[in-house]
Amino acid sequence: MSADPQPPRHIPLPPPRRRLRLGFVGGGKGAFIGQVHAMGARLSNRWEVVAGALSSSPETALRSGRDWLLAQDRIYSDYRTMAETERDRPDGIDAVAIVTPNHLHAPVALAFMRCGIDVICDKPLCNSLQEAAALLAAQRETGLVFGVSYVYASHAMVRQIREMVQDGAVGRIRQIHVEYFQEWALDPASSSEKGGAWRMDPARSGASFTTADIGTHAHHLACFASGLEMQALRADFHVSGAAKPLEDTCFMQTRFEGDVPGTLMVSQAAAGTHCGLRLRIFGDLAGLEWNQETPEHVTLSPAKAPSQRFLRGEDAGIGQAARRVTRMPRGHPEGFADAWATLYTEFAVAVEARRDGRTVPDGLLGLPSLRDGIAGVKFVLAAVESNAAGGTWNDCRR
Amino acid sequence: MSADPQPPRHIPLPPPRRRLRLGFVGGGKGAFIGQVHAMGARLSNRWEVVAGALSSSPETALRSGRDWLLAQDRIYSDYRTMAETERDRPDGIDAVAIVTPNHLHAPVALAFMRCGIDVICDKPLCNSLQEAAALLAAQRETGLVFGVSYVYASHAMVRQIREMVQDGAVGRIRQIHVEYFQEWALDPASSSEKGGAWRMDPARSGASFTTADIGTHAHHLACFASGLEMQALRADFHVSGAAKPLEDTCFMQTRFEGDVPGTLMVSQAAAGTHCGLRLRIFGDLAGLEWNQETPEHVTLSPAKAPSQRFLRGEDAGIGQAARRVTRMPRGHPEGFADAWATLYTEFAVAVEARRDGRTVPDGLLGLPSLRDGIAGVKFVLAAVESNAAGGTWNDCRR
Amino acid sequence: MSADPQPPRHIPLPPPRRRLRLGFVGGGKGAFIGQVHAMGARLSNRWEVVAGALSSSPETALRSGRDWLLAQDRIYSDYRTMAETERDRPDGIDAVAIVTPNHLHAPVALAFMRCGIDVICDKPLCNSLQEAAALLAAQRETGLVFGVSYVYASHAMVRQIREMVQDGAVGRIRQIHVEYFQEWALDPASSSEKGGAWRMDPARSGASFTTADIGTHAHHLACFASGLEMQALRADFHVSGAAKPLEDTCFMQTRFEGDVPGTLMVSQAAAGTHCGLRLRIFGDLAGLEWNQETPEHVTLSPAKAPSQRFLRGEDAGIGQAARRVTRMPRGHPEGFADAWATLYTEFAVAVEARRDGRTVPDGLLGLPSLRDGIAGVKFVLAAVESNAAGGTWNDCRR
Amino acid sequence: MSADPQPPRHIPLPPPRRRLRLGFVGGGKGAFIGQVHAMGARLSNRWEVVAGALSSSPETALRSGRDWLLAQDRIYSDYRTMAETERDRPDGIDAVAIVTPNHLHAPVALAFMRCGIDVICDKPLCNSLQEAAALLAAQRETGLVFGVSYVYASHAMVRQIREMVQDGAVGRIRQIHVEYFQEWALDPASSSEKGGAWRMDPARSGASFTTADIGTHAHHLACFASGLEMQALRADFHVSGAAKPLEDTCFMQTRFEGDVPGTLMVSQAAAGTHCGLRLRIFGDLAGLEWNQETPEHVTLSPAKAPSQRFLRGEDAGIGQAARRVTRMPRGHPEGFADAWATLYTEFAVAVEARRDGRTVPDGLLGLPSLRDGIAGVKFVLAAVESNAAGGTWNDCRR
Repeated sequence: MSADPQPPRHIPLPPPRRRLRLGFVGGGKGAFIGQVHAMGARLSNRWEVVAGALSSSPETALRSGRDWLLAQDRIYSDYRTMAETERDRPDGIDAVAIVTPNHLHAPVALAFMRCGIDVICDKPLCNSLQEAAALLAAQRETGLVFGVSYVYASHAMVRQIREMVQDGAVGRIRQIHVEYFQEWALDPASSSEKGGAWRMDPARSGASFTTADIGTHAHHLACFASGLEMQALRADFHVSGAAKPLEDTCFMQTRFEGDVPGTLMVSQAAAGTHCGLRLRIFGDLAGLEWNQETPEHVTLSPAKAPSQRFLRGEDAGIGQAARRVTRMPRGHPEGFADAWATLYTEFAVAVEARRDGRTVPDGLLGLPSLRDGIAGVKFVLAAVESNAAGGTWNDCRR
Repeated sequence: MSADPQPPRHIPLPPPRRRLRLGFVGGGKGAFIGQVHAMGARLSNRWEVVAGALSSSPETALRSGRDWLLAQDRIYSDYRTMAETERDRPDGIDAVAIVTPNHLHAPVALAFMRCGIDVICDKPLCNSLQEAAALLAAQRETGLVFGVSYVYASHAMVRQIREMVQDGAVGRIRQIHVEYFQEWALDPASSSEKGGAWRMDPARSGASFTTADIGTHAHHLACFASGLEMQALRADFHVSGAAKPLEDTCFMQTRFEGDVPGTLMVSQAAAGTHCGLRLRIFGDLAGLEWNQETPEHVTLSPAKAPSQRFLRGEDAGIGQAARRVTRMPRGHPEGFADAWATLYTEFAVAVEARRDGRTVPDGLLGLPSLRDGIAGVKFVLAAVESNAAGGTWNDCRR
Repeated sequence: MSADPQPPRHIPLPPPRRRLRLGFVGGGKGAFIGQVHAMGARLSNRWEVVAGALSSSPETALRSGRDWLLAQDRIYSDYRTMAETERDRPDGIDAVAIVTPNHLHAPVALAFMRCGIDVICDKPLCNSLQEAAALLAAQRETGLVFGVSYVYASHAMVRQIREMVQDGAVGRIRQIHVEYFQEWALDPASSSEKGGAWRMDPARSGASFTTADIGTHAHHLACFASGLEMQALRADFHVSGAAKPLEDTCFMQTRFEGDVPGTLMVSQAAAGTHCGLRLRIFGDLAGLEWNQETPEHVTLSPAKAPSQRFLRGEDAGIGQAARRVTRMPRGHPEGFADAWATLYTEFAVAVEARRDGRTVPDGLLGLPSLRDGIAGVKFVLAAVESNAAGGTWNDCRR
Repeated sequence: MSADPQPPRHIPLPPPRRRLRLGFVGGGKGAFIGQVHAMGARLSNRWEVVAGALSSSPETALRSGRDWLLAQDRIYSDYRTMAETERDRPDGIDAVAIVTPNHLHAPVALAFMRCGIDVICDKPLCNSLQEAAALLAAQRETGLVFGVSYVYASHAMVRQIREMVQDGAVGRIRQIHVEYFQEWALDPASSSEKGGAWRMDPARSGASFTTADIGTHAHHLACFASGLEMQALRADFHVSGAAKPLEDTCFMQTRFEGDVPGTLMVSQAAAGTHCGLRLRIFGDLAGLEWNQETPEHVTLSPAKAPSQRFLRGEDAGIGQAARRVTRMPRGHPEGFADAWATLYTEFAVAVEARRDGRTVPDGLLGLPSLRDGIAGVKFVLAAVESNAAGGTWNDCRR
């Protein structure tokens, strides 16, 4: 998460030479996030989705695989079988996307890494530091690419913020506020829906529901955009919606590198909100604001000049980092699918470079790494402990 | 454009059985719109792009074809050769997307139709009524699918407006206002850029620059959303930006079926605007507003109740027409690529139905038809004549 | 309306020495605009309201006068009596505010001018060129101050626009669009409400309802802000709301000095709108936008830089013209009452100067003059004639 | 702060019978808030400002008094003299407005209360519980009216929120978030400006700068709008702007009656902000949002219906509480001056009722009381202590 000393601004992403082959674990009927990964992969035009263990139920796996237009012999219901079979095929998958419930992320990733297959994994990375350590060890051993889908950082205008901050547009950072409000867990029915059932179940989701589910997004966005590591936090957990065994709401006071204070608020039981992920950074020269629901612009509000609206796709004021990942001309909105396409484009570039034995220039890609995934796990665990201890300040890097 | 007597609201789109094969004419290096068509086709997961005459220059065609990852033997520089070759291949293209300058739309379309290949064509359809008549005749003869890429009508919330209007949400329509403001033709350099050069050249663009280029979008959107045909107009053409042989700005007073008055304003030389396509419909019960740059919501403002914001993806208030084409959950923005994906999804559904000899239920699809394309040509010609005659009221259906 | 060669930017308005005495004609129970004039006068702290013929019905005049806390002997029901009585009192009114239906503006104004009393009159000034000529003659004879309450031009940010335009912020003006949408005349009941009854009655309102009532506001705003005179128009009148003898909706194409084209749209039957007065000016360098319902900021959108939001009360970017009339610090919104307070402040400055025999420096005040009032009358008459003739281009300066 | 069991919804405010006479302590040249109080008093048409000790410097007092058009013999530089002199005049002031630095609020108020003069006092009420107790004792003894200028609660749409919440529009409240961001204390020069010098000086401002200065506004707004008392908080103080002896930034986690959690964030060193006071209430049925910079509407976002925009002045959806204090028709924005006018209107009603020996019906007025002022003092002291103790949860009602 440290600032790039010399980001290679004027280097475009290399063009594709062929479409890489992608497999999925998870994502079967009723799941949302697998579909979205697949859309990003397709829209990137760098991948074709060719195999999947979309469900551990053979029947669901089969039906889902057909919906995805997978060949019959590449529809699996056991991820270990899939890893080994694909490893052995001449046209086996180049990489796997893991979109299962959280508790399966680490075992699935390890199985594919053992077969020499690059991995992109949904967030949060895993539920314990032990799993995190095992993943780190496996990556060190294998040298494989390991991406984590903190997708909001793939919006062009989040790249723009990171570059503007590095270029001094806000001056010295003095406050960082991030919030993410959703409403779906208000409803008692949410805990029996497919996505809700495992997210609210400590056995599968870990010690946290909302802090893990969307708090990690907020944490990564704040760190990525500001270029500052979050060092400490104190957390206040609540159940604001229907009764459930884990928190659906968390308020934090935070500290970033350089003793920069901040706040982080997340709730999945905030009535009338949708995906209200909002970031505000106040520096000594200017403030910056970005909102996921209107991702196409950043507002820069200098202390001594009229506020400015930086629009994706414009010539004026838009830097190389955003240009590199821009897909549509200005005024024609990019959306969530475009951010996923950028994630999968950068994942492809990283995979191709590894296969070619090339190093990707530092700072060329914004693809979140295993390290970023582990930072998120530590963040969740620090919050759980802080809340349990009545709101102590906890280091979130340990 | 007439209202569907019984729109089949609860019928979802049929799932794909295989990816259809798509070829492109036009779209070579430097062109924008071909790329966007291709993104939509890929994101729809209903098509694979397998062939192209991306340019009439063999060298550009080759380079562009490689960038698109086309097989060497399916890269063409002559569209006639492409039509015939693809017709004769066992794995030949199912359909062609035409993204050339306007004056080539008709000859290219006719060439592919003669080979029995379904067509999707960029707008405006063509430059003369003679060409329009030839296309209509060819379609009648062949029974082929012919789509026109008035893509804005593929946004979920434009579908929502059409359904709300049909359901009486605004009452009886009393005024329709549509505007589309861009700024790129302000700049003298615009006339020598790839997209500008032919658009401002009467030999390729026809008798109008802006009325044809974006006026047709505004016209189609107003008619599609309101369910009313535009019957008459009077036009006032201007050059507001750099000098050029055709208008870059046009203001109209309009009349729709039922003597509903309106206005239509388009300019490609309106400084500080991007793709400012905005529709407002005022009825005797409520007003409606939608803006292409923030396409995810519609504002309904009743005369006797607080105004309401209908958000794509919500359960509340969102009808079947929008649901049928919704790709992302609420709060995760759909953008321009998603509208294109819907256009290509519906085109695929129409092509599959034709091949199967099935009829698509009336109103199931919002895919703009050849008829809609011809209505746009008549609209442009009526405007050109009205302006030339000093602003006479002209029928725009002849 | 001509541009000030050297606007005296750094001269503040002179402070008050005493509160001037103001009388009202019109404004009795149920009337809205009289109350608003009085609020502006009070908030300006330059006036005290001491006399009134608030109604021609003695009983209503009395009740209304008491509500206004007027002294018993200064409550009148006949404006002529009021003019003469006040002229003869040692503490007689310094000025009169005329807030009657339109057809009475001219006779009332003439009565007070004959008594040497300065006048501020609501818009539209009057219903005929004959009346306009009589008022002009009376002013030339008497040298009295005559203000017209085109109040929107008194918003600080409208002053800012005028100054920015003069300073070249938008470059050469290429298009001017103004619209004003209200909804109240949709409702059949509106024609029997106090304000509706006379506005929709040709005998009192003249040959136009909406073009006169709010079209004149839009016309003045466009001219004042741009610094350009409107020279010609063609008009299309409609009844969009409940049946009525005069138009409630008018669409225009317009021409300003220097052959600058534009549009003007007004409706009082546009469902879901409130006081949607919006101005857009497009120049060859930038566009500008202002909206009466959010009057505190102006958006400047340069063709070659991010768009900027100029906020009233800021140091950065705000010129002397806006500062001179700013009442509240930034972030604490000024509203409609503040615009009226500025109108009445400037009226007071003009009245004091006349009494002292001083000349107000050109451009110090933005107070709309009798000339501006007459321009509005000509605008209405040109529109009525254009519409009647089927939309001919008519000169609106004759 | 408890909810009114039966708010008298359909009772309008009584009309004025005469203008009451108001005096000021504080507000001399360079001060902002005194001017604003005076504007509100004038705009209310219930008061005339007739006397003042606008400064303790005789020269400044004199100059300021003349600017305010005060009579020479009612310009004072000593507030005690003013209290006694005015008490003894037959036309003495009915009430005093106290707009001095915080440490003088209590002594000045006590001086006037001892002379039987009703008081309206700026916030925060005072710097210590001792002072608060003395004021309470004095009020109990004298029965005088004592208002505190938490003016944001006088916006019509804040009244609307309170009524909507009472009526169940959001269901059971589950979260309350309030923030107030300004930027002026970023700048080192701020500490030597008139308003900054005393606010950042512990001797005059007390143990807190920002929590006292604008945190009290946020606290009162959250409690007033929700109808819930804040019971506990933990606070994190920072200096985010130029170095200063007191905090300019404070982040809190809060608890309201019924164990409702919330957050409160205030900063006067948040670059690019102006008066960013924003309230969000999430209930189990809907969320509500209001923003001081756009005070004319409230957004209600139900969990199960499209979000709605309630606009001041509309018939639809607007309750009696807002109607009672509405001054302008919809679409013509009320601003900060209007909120002050409402504050002074309600103060006048309270003063007249006391003088007449009448009781004002419970809930008729929203005028903040001495009790509300004392709650603010306790809130500040609890925050100061919590921060000093490293963020302990402190009761803020003691």
